[in-house]
Amino acid sequence: MAKITAVSPLAPESFPSLPVIDGVQFATIAAGVRYQGREDVMLAKLAPGTAIAGVFTTSATRAAPVLDCQAKLGGPSEAGAAILVNSGNANAFTGRNGTDAVQAIATATASACGVPAARVFTCSTGVIGEPLPFDRITAHLQRLSESAAADGIVAAARAIMTTDTFPKGATAVVETPRGRVKIAGIAKGSGMIAPDMATMLAYIFTDAQIGQADLQGLVSSYNTETFNCITVDSDTSTSDTLLVAATGASGVDVTNDPAFAAALRSVMLELAHLIIRDGEGATKFVEITVSGAASPSDAKIHALSIANSPLVKTAIAGEDPNWGRIVMAVGKSGAAADRDLLSIRFGDVVVAEKGWVSAGYDEAAAAAHMKGQNLSIAVDLGLGAGEATVWTCDLTHGYIDINADYRS
Amino acid sequence: MAKITAVSPLAPESFPSLPVIDGVQFATIAAGVRYQGREDVMLAKLAPGTAIAGVFTTSATRAAPVLDCQAKLGGPSEAGAAILVNSGNANAFTGRNGTDAVQAIATATASACGVPAARVFTCSTGVIGEPLPFDRITAHLQRLSESAAADGIVAAARAIMTTDTFPKGATAVVETPRGRVKIAGIAKGSGMIAPDMATMLAYIFTDAQIGQADLQGLVSSYNTETFNCITVDSDTSTSDTLLVAATGASGVDVTNDPAFAAALRSVMLELAHLIIRDGEGATKFVEITVSGAASPSDAKIHALSIANSPLVKTAIAGEDPNWGRIVMAVGKSGAAADRDLLSIRFGDVVVAEKGWVSAGYDEAAAAAHMKGQNLSIAVDLGLGAGEATVWTCDLTHGYIDINADYRS
Repeated sequence: MAKITAVSPLAPESFPSLPVIDGVQFATIAAGVRYQGREDVMLAKLAPGTAIAGVFTTSATRAAPVLDCQAKLGGPSEAGAAILVNSGNANAFTGRNGTDAVQAIATATASACGVPAARVFTCSTGVIGEPLPFDRITAHLQRLSESAAADGIVAAARAIMTTDTFPKGATAVVETPRGRVKIAGIAKGSGMIAPDMATMLAYIFTDAQIGQADLQGLVSSYNTETFNCITVDSDTSTSDTLLVAATGASGVDVTNDPAFAAALRSVMLELAHLIIRDGEGATKFVEITVSGAASPSDAKIHALSIANSPLVKTAIAGEDPNWGRIVMAVGKSGAAADRDLLSIRFGDVVVAEKGWVSAGYDEAAAAAHMKGQNLSIAVDLGLGAGEATVWTCDLTHGYIDINADYRS
Repeated sequence: MAKITAVSPLAPESFPSLPVIDGVQFATIAAGVRYQGREDVMLAKLAPGTAIAGVFTTSATRAAPVLDCQAKLGGPSEAGAAILVNSGNANAFTGRNGTDAVQAIATATASACGVPAARVFTCSTGVIGEPLPFDRITAHLQRLSESAAADGIVAAARAIMTTDTFPKGATAVVETPRGRVKIAGIAKGSGMIAPDMATMLAYIFTDAQIGQADLQGLVSSYNTETFNCITVDSDTSTSDTLLVAATGASGVDVTNDPAFAAALRSVMLELAHLIIRDGEGATKFVEITVSGAASPSDAKIHALSIANSPLVKTAIAGEDPNWGRIVMAVGKSGAAADRDLLSIRFGDVVVAEKGWVSAGYDEAAAAAHMKGQNLSIAVDLGLGAGEATVWTCDLTHGYIDINADYRS
């Protein structure tokens, strides 16, 4: 078993100071689902009237809790609600046992929190294919519910971690014409990260007041340009879940408010970036922008082809401005491209123009860019107006170390 | 620059004894295109009347020599022909210079060998994006042509190598109702290996007599189940080329002969397998079979999704029978699957049945299978009759070592 001791070199200096979100209370506990000596279950209790939106993995083999969350989304929100998450066991590919476990946990959570079981959203992350010992979770639910407090979000961010090397949080405070609202989000994810969905698990809370359908519209729309634009390893999880809960406790209606929408998007993007910054074995954070494509979807296909190419990712690990591999990745993507119109930049350095190395190409400058921690690769196809940006990390020995032994 | 000193642990014990193919002569030389101290150019001179079939990379950024070969395929074959290959420089993404280089080499080869330039097929493999110093090649062509001999195929197999750790050859001798014919093939390829096409470079020679259209039909058909079913790293080269030359020197017509067709397919499959056995950093040769899919194309999509998954490939490197990652790869592939009908086998060990771990699952037996060098993973989807088999290797520290520094 590979020991994962070091914190990612791309981690932020500290966990952000997340504001208390009125209408949400958190509790965590060490239930011993799989991990020992650390908290592995988190509960978020949500006030009556909380609107909950969500997006989920599109995997054909998605886990029982995902299917349950999807079925519950959009239900009546007058009563209170709860989110219950365990790490260490994904409760995926566990047959009938998986559904039973979800029902047992939802029922126990509902009872302990005094909310309908139809308003309990459960998520599990960790090993696939082992039965979830759900009694270890249900045994603690009464105590968990009683200990819930408004300021527990940092512990919640830690309790949902698996191979993560640091807890992930993001926040925004928005001044709207009707008043101030706050947003606080947490996420976990490190490997098995690829669209669609690329979140692993993310939970965003706000005291804003907004209807479920409006909130869902924002979340679905921004998801395509945030969580669905990150990739660590092209492997899509069976459990990816993003839930956004708006308690309305501020009394500030943000329906159609552009400032709230922008702030929500920024929190989603920041959490997505933090997942890349904790990509398994990552030493470089890489932004890949494709412009000039025949369409936006073509641009995204090219960008993900570059971002998922093992040869591109190992070249980045080796700090090699190897633009030939960018050409290869564009060529293999299946989307429209004309070799003789391609231009490529590493940072500000123009590497290739119109299908060949740029006349003024400065390899030393390109190599210097590659030595940084935050890299940008830009490709212009010269065909149309389609644009897309995606984010990825490099492929290193650390990824092999982690995944040749960790059973996820 | 990573030193690649060790021969792949999956290499065959020795290079096979390849028969002389009447109508073909080989010559090799150290032209210093990029490598020093080794032969890097090979010439195959083909007798008048030789039929030449081929398949090529489908990359949108394919290299100048590939475009030239594609244009020439199917032309009149009365005159002699030649194949000229250099390693070290792929002449890809080299703009106008690339086309000029191809023309210069084809013209010089035609002149030296006394064949039309329209019957000279050139291939280049190696670094992308650097101009090919074609004068280093053309300077040697007269001498190269004069030194050509029937028994030079082993040296030819070595001259086309890049990151390969061993030369690759395969052969078959076929008894047909009309007489005996011989087939001998060589290939190179190690990284940037994925359909379509997955060959990198392969050249197969036979003294059989067959029309170009018939030969092309066989080659195209078998290509889909041999070279297009292997993947090292999902990265598709800009230069992949397979050429099959039938000199007719045996005087044995093999049109519609099933024994010849089967022998040709077996040589193609063996060369494809040898490329996987020399996959960059590979320590395991893995056959992945998907059955019970809704269609054959769905089966191949699932099989390649498994074969290209970094998490599956690192689990194999770690000798971990991690079937959860197989479930993940099936789920993400986009083709039809029902989680609760899935069955998975590692070797003879039934791991999962109908969506969950098998009642009689013997983890020790599965772990023992994973310790072997030749692994098989079988997935049954329980949906239909679609089947496909693909071959891949594991993802190891060796792949990172090679590709974080080698500029290809």
